Amino acid sequence: MDQIDTDLTRDEDDTDAYALDRKSVAAILYAVDIQDQDKLTELMEPLHAADIADLLEQINPYDRARLIRLYDREFDGDILSELDESIREEVMAVLRPDVLAEAVRELDSDDVVDLLEDLEEPQQEAILEVLEDADRVAVEQSLSYPENSAGRLMQREVVMAPEHWTVGQAIDFMRNSEDLPEQFYHVVLVDPRLHPIGNVTLGKIMGARRETLLTDLMEETFQIIPADQDEEDVAYAFNQYHLISAPVVDEEGRLVGVITIDDAMVVLDEEHEEDILRLAGVGEGSLSDTVVETAKQRLPWLAVNLLTAILASLVIAIFDQTISRFVALAVLMPIVASMGGNAGTQSLTVAVRALATRDLTGSNLWRVLRREVLVGLGNGLIFAVVMGVVGLAWFGSPELGLVIAAAMVVNLVVAGLAGAGIPVLLDKIGVDPALASGTFVTTVTDVVGFFAFLGLAAITLL
Amino acid sequence: MDQIDTDLTRDEDDTDAYALDRKSVAAILYAVDIQDQDKLTELMEPLHAADIADLLEQINPYDRARLIRLYDREFDGDILSELDESIREEVMAVLRPDVLAEAVRELDSDDVVDLLEDLEEPQQEAILEVLEDADRVAVEQSLSYPENSAGRLMQREVVMAPEHWTVGQAIDFMRNSEDLPEQFYHVVLVDPRLHPIGNVTLGKIMGARRETLLTDLMEETFQIIPADQDEEDVAYAFNQYHLISAPVVDEEGRLVGVITIDDAMVVLDEEHEEDILRLAGVGEGSLSDTVVETAKQRLPWLAVNLLTAILASLVIAIFDQTISRFVALAVLMPIVASMGGNAGTQSLTVAVRALATRDLTGSNLWRVLRREVLVGLGNGLIFAVVMGVVGLAWFGSPELGLVIAAAMVVNLVVAGLAGAGIPVLLDKIGVDPALASGTFVTTVTDVVGFFAFLGLAAITLL
Repeated sequence: MDQIDTDLTRDEDDTDAYALDRKSVAAILYAVDIQDQDKLTELMEPLHAADIADLLEQINPYDRARLIRLYDREFDGDILSELDESIREEVMAVLRPDVLAEAVRELDSDDVVDLLEDLEEPQQEAILEVLEDADRVAVEQSLSYPENSAGRLMQREVVMAPEHWTVGQAIDFMRNSEDLPEQFYHVVLVDPRLHPIGNVTLGKIMGARRETLLTDLMEETFQIIPADQDEEDVAYAFNQYHLISAPVVDEEGRLVGVITIDDAMVVLDEEHEEDILRLAGVGEGSLSDTVVETAKQRLPWLAVNLLTAILASLVIAIFDQTISRFVALAVLMPIVASMGGNAGTQSLTVAVRALATRDLTGSNLWRVLRREVLVGLGNGLIFAVVMGVVGLAWFGSPELGLVIAAAMVVNLVVAGLAGAGIPVLLDKIGVDPALASGTFVTTVTDVVGFFAFLGLAAITLL
Repeated sequence: MDQIDTDLTRDEDDTDAYALDRKSVAAILYAVDIQDQDKLTELMEPLHAADIADLLEQINPYDRARLIRLYDREFDGDILSELDESIREEVMAVLRPDVLAEAVRELDSDDVVDLLEDLEEPQQEAILEVLEDADRVAVEQSLSYPENSAGRLMQREVVMAPEHWTVGQAIDFMRNSEDLPEQFYHVVLVDPRLHPIGNVTLGKIMGARRETLLTDLMEETFQIIPADQDEEDVAYAFNQYHLISAPVVDEEGRLVGVITIDDAMVVLDEEHEEDILRLAGVGEGSLSDTVVETAKQRLPWLAVNLLTAILASLVIAIFDQTISRFVALAVLMPIVASMGGNAGTQSLTVAVRALATRDLTGSNLWRVLRREVLVGLGNGLIFAVVMGVVGLAWFGSPELGLVIAAAMVVNLVVAGLAGAGIPVLLDKIGVDPALASGTFVTTVTDVVGFFAFLGLAAITLL
């Protein structure tokens, strides 16, 4: 027992190189228990805002409220930004109004936008009021762009320079500038109508002589992002072209902001989370949701599954006479359906993922479909032989072996076709394939599996 | 028909803002068909290396070889970097040796490492030979670090400065430096033993007066990465702390390289891909794999599924007498198993994802497990009522309704427990939960589902 305990501890130390370890969480909660504010502040001091947010997400609501009240004035705006949306409102309700106001005022405009977009109107108003005039205008302008658009994601603070400037002029301008953004990596060159024409990295400016023209240093890869572009496309562009920052333009093509790679990385992460959860039939869920919230999120997906399961049962019911004469059919039929469901899930996951990364396009659609069907045929034949032998050995009936073998081939071919085809069709008609493919594909493989197996059995065995 | 066509086109234009469109692919393949080198070069000119790589992945091997041969000297090293590993070797075999050598010489050391690590020994040697001495040493040193470690990911080119330098000294140093890295965003401050002590962004240096000390401009968030750290942990740190670049140190804590966010983003993307494919029981697969390769990758997972399906069948076989008397049981039993499988998949996906993002830890494990069980109980009760009514209405037997209702509750509670518990257990013993959880969980829900339903039926109905 001792042995095992040691192993588990070692494993935890090893993999959680950055995460909060159990001991510090316990120490923090103890400080909260004994209401020792100094001790709490001391323990929280080395933690990054992202870690504090994780901590708040992991503990229960009662401890959360007590910790926040005791931490009080130390509470940082960045912690709010890092918090999962599901408990952000709860945390903001616990914070004293003046602490909340101070926390929000510290944030960059894009972080305030991120904070505000999930709040109700009256709470939005309350927070906008505490901002300085310039910040409030910037935030309101960003909020005027559609949800999940580049306009919401960008920061308004941009360092730009006229296209005819030299390195020396740019350096002098920046050195004399009162408020450069906290983080920036490029100077955006613009023409007189404020249209961006290129990016120059700060590294290139650093390495060049003062008299060098900025236009001679422009990056080869340059992507301009329309403010109303979907953030998913923005993340794709950053990932595909290894962008570090990209200018955002309004409808007239004028520079209005800049998006940096760290924001794109967050979006990419969220998109993945969404895909993975949707594929499993889990809605928006978060780990800090309550039992009732979680049950509600999952209920619709289970309800849809129930309908498709009943559909499959109706197929079985057609053959109830056959089953009551050959009970071996009832024993074997879930195998055919299960293998089809699994093969279909394999094909659909590859297709959904390839659609998301834009690797599956008009150019290779038919080749991919053909491949999936042939893979289904190949593996179908292999498992047909296996199950034919199992069927024969178990129930001593060569006919039964042949029937399950044939049904296996049919179902695995159909699984390949449906698994690759259904996501593509859903994508074409504008439905997220991650969301709906699973249900359709397993319905197809269940129905086809039961129908092929029981139908062939009815013909052959009766 | 016309109507639909127009819609599909619009949809494609809309979502594929960056991807290659079908028309340009067709034009490129036509140029290859008629062997028009000038036309091909002209059509490829505006494409980013990443897009050219995508194009090569999407077309068939025959067109691929012809395109590469015709494109010839224009073939860029970056295209090789961007190519999926599955076809990289094939492409390198088609390239003329001198074109390949030239392409590799253009690359940064970290990209060469990425290229080499998947190759066989003799091919590695051949490529190392064409590199200049300094580059070869850098690449060989990187290759001496374990696979998937920070040492493989880092670039060797670092801009560093002694901790006592001023802004002016740093600027002069950079301006006089012969070969600054292509992309860099920070100056790393080091002590006399080359231990990194802080990062200063180029933006801060640009905005400060020449006499300012670099130490006064250091970033608040500073993470040092050991060269042997797993790349997964590196990606986590970049994502968690919004790092842009981070210094990498050897065992003595000396600066040996730097990792930038774009590399971390690639790793994050790969980790996601791996998780999503593993959850679906698809191995390493890529869209450009052949039928035989794909079938082979998927076969083991289907084989495991077959074993678990046979296990479930054995449970059914125990009750064959009961089924032959009440064929309604055969009709309804897949519903119980299917609902359990779905609920289990929901729980396990949430757990696997939370383990990957380190949101599920020792601090909240018991709360999460309790939640999953209670969610299973809640939804189980709801679907118990629904199925009780369906069972009664369909087969006119209150007993049958009660049996399926009870089995539903049992299976959904077990699904919640197994769905959350199994991934945690696998993670503890060092097995990737994404890889193996699915099989275990659906085995549990199938076996429990059939056993509970048929067992209760045998007791109640006989």
